Amino acid sequence: MAGLEKGLTYAHSGVDIDAGNRAVDLIRQIAQSTFRPEVLSNLGGFSGLFALDLTRYQKPVLVASTDGVGTKLKIAVLMNRHSSIGIDVVAMCVNDILVQGAEPLFFLDYLAMGKLAPEKVAAIVAGVAEGCRQAGCALLGGETAEMPGIYSPEEYDLAGFVVGIAERAKIINGSRIKPGDRIIGLPSSGLHSNGYSLARKVLLEEAGYQVDTYHHALGRTVGEEMLVPTRIYVSLILPLLEKTDFDILGMVNITGGALRENIPRILPPGCAVALKKQSWSIPPIFSLIQEIGRIKEAEMQRVFNLGLGFLLIVPNKEASALLSYFNRQKEKAYLVGEVIPGNKEVVFV
Amino acid sequence: MAGLEKGLTYAHSGVDIDAGNRAVDLIRQIAQSTFRPEVLSNLGGFSGLFALDLTRYQKPVLVASTDGVGTKLKIAVLMNRHSSIGIDVVAMCVNDILVQGAEPLFFLDYLAMGKLAPEKVAAIVAGVAEGCRQAGCALLGGETAEMPGIYSPEEYDLAGFVVGIAERAKIINGSRIKPGDRIIGLPSSGLHSNGYSLARKVLLEEAGYQVDTYHHALGRTVGEEMLVPTRIYVSLILPLLEKTDFDILGMVNITGGALRENIPRILPPGCAVALKKQSWSIPPIFSLIQEIGRIKEAEMQRVFNLGLGFLLIVPNKEASALLSYFNRQKEKAYLVGEVIPGNKEVVFV
Repeated sequence: MAGLEKGLTYAHSGVDIDAGNRAVDLIRQIAQSTFRPEVLSNLGGFSGLFALDLTRYQKPVLVASTDGVGTKLKIAVLMNRHSSIGIDVVAMCVNDILVQGAEPLFFLDYLAMGKLAPEKVAAIVAGVAEGCRQAGCALLGGETAEMPGIYSPEEYDLAGFVVGIAERAKIINGSRIKPGDRIIGLPSSGLHSNGYSLARKVLLEEAGYQVDTYHHALGRTVGEEMLVPTRIYVSLILPLLEKTDFDILGMVNITGGALRENIPRILPPGCAVALKKQSWSIPPIFSLIQEIGRIKEAEMQRVFNLGLGFLLIVPNKEASALLSYFNRQKEKAYLVGEVIPGNKEVVFV
Repeated sequence: MAGLEKGLTYAHSGVDIDAGNRAVDLIRQIAQSTFRPEVLSNLGGFSGLFALDLTRYQKPVLVASTDGVGTKLKIAVLMNRHSSIGIDVVAMCVNDILVQGAEPLFFLDYLAMGKLAPEKVAAIVAGVAEGCRQAGCALLGGETAEMPGIYSPEEYDLAGFVVGIAERAKIINGSRIKPGDRIIGLPSSGLHSNGYSLARKVLLEEAGYQVDTYHHALGRTVGEEMLVPTRIYVSLILPLLEKTDFDILGMVNITGGALRENIPRILPPGCAVALKKQSWSIPPIFSLIQEIGRIKEAEMQRVFNLGLGFLLIVPNKEASALLSYFNRQKEKAYLVGEVIPGNKEVVFV
């Protein structure tokens, strides 16, 4: 190869340090737009520094989670639209700590790609920053890695990591849930970031749709529907926890494993859940996938959120007041089921 | 396809939820071996909980970092040895927060693979847990994602996230460094986890070695040399910071960008660094790569650690006492250079 006459460089092996440095410069400005007063450092250092404000907590507990966005990435690549997938990765992480009652403090992202294109990196990280603003957390740092040979040139993976804080006595863990409690569901924005390997197989292979195929049942193209960002519930739920007296017994993020596998994660022994299928409307995208793929109902229920992205469990006597609360906030919310005696299973009635 | 008669399932799209659940069971046990008293949760919940012990800090600052292991992963895959790459990902993260004087508290890993093999996942995560034990931090959580179509079946990516804590007044940031200060270098264990795209190109393509080729200059096979885990400096450095009175002005983790690009990250204006090339011995793996690839010296210096994995900067008058300290700990350490007037450059003399 040509390079050998003058000796090999890192660039010959497919890694461009200068492109990496340009990306870091772009990222630094984007990240600063998310900073909270507690952030002590810029991104140039070896790590991110975040000063804890301890005046607000007696026994502070850090709450941490990591997640990716699965093969929703494939849709972003197919459409060459990279500005919202970062919202998804923030959503997947912050919703996981929100269910325990934690306030997100800061976020870090890991972005690995086959060929480092600084402008693509900037678009992706701008989405991460938008997600951080929606969640109220600082984008404290991140890693952008060029990994030729593991990712094809146009492919990438994106993972995130969030740290939040909660007062120990106020951590929500489901331990007081009992039969008779009610379950209130909040709408998802669409598929969120789970089930994409199956959704892609059904829509893009079995049905033969392209991402730019307009579908009348969706009212937009298949790709647009599949790329809708995962909803971030922080700005709706944190004020509920901090400024109202509702007795929130448990919260569930409908993530991988969907309705069937996530609800049991917070149920105490002796409890199960009955969800009323007619109590909320299943958005068209889910019916479309089920119909084309001839997917069994039970499989749909453990792969897709079916229109419910987040659940709250409250005592029976507080359920209607909580529904009214959401209504006053102009937010949709449904009474979707109740806790019943059982062995942590989810039944659909 | 066969599945269509009965309808599609998630497994048909290449995602096996049951394999994922088996992997989670294996991981849970491995992670528990790393827990510290502050850990409040098992891994089954939506997030990891870590109670802060605030009696030790007046103004606690959280210090966070994320990193991956680059294409060193390719070596693990080629050799089908997955038990130590997890040590690398912990090392890459904890060494980055250690340079600011932080004690690692907890770690989370993100593992994405083409085909989820629970036993391979368990081997990888066992390495992560070993790294966490070496660094004294808890493996608080993680994500294992099956992503067919982004990774080929045998490939995977591994990223990590660490959170540490430091007393605000004791954070080390290099701001007091001045010309005349001395630089002490600690040996690396080998290539660590940087420069692998170039190292693989040179050794496995140009030279035509296989991972199981024995090389006399290395005293082992090429693959064994390339898979040596990145050294974790926590157990050597934290006691130095906490139990001695040395005035550590700055520390440098020799990570991506190597000696040329990492040292300037902590230098204040008006300072540069002169490294004495003869003051430490460059291990054979680096000379081998340079020779075969005919790589220029300056390129080697910005891609590979050349045998120095971690640097400390101290006042001139403390340098020999610090060298004696490491000597008493039976640890190799070298006086490798000094701070000179300049504009943040690194010169080799």
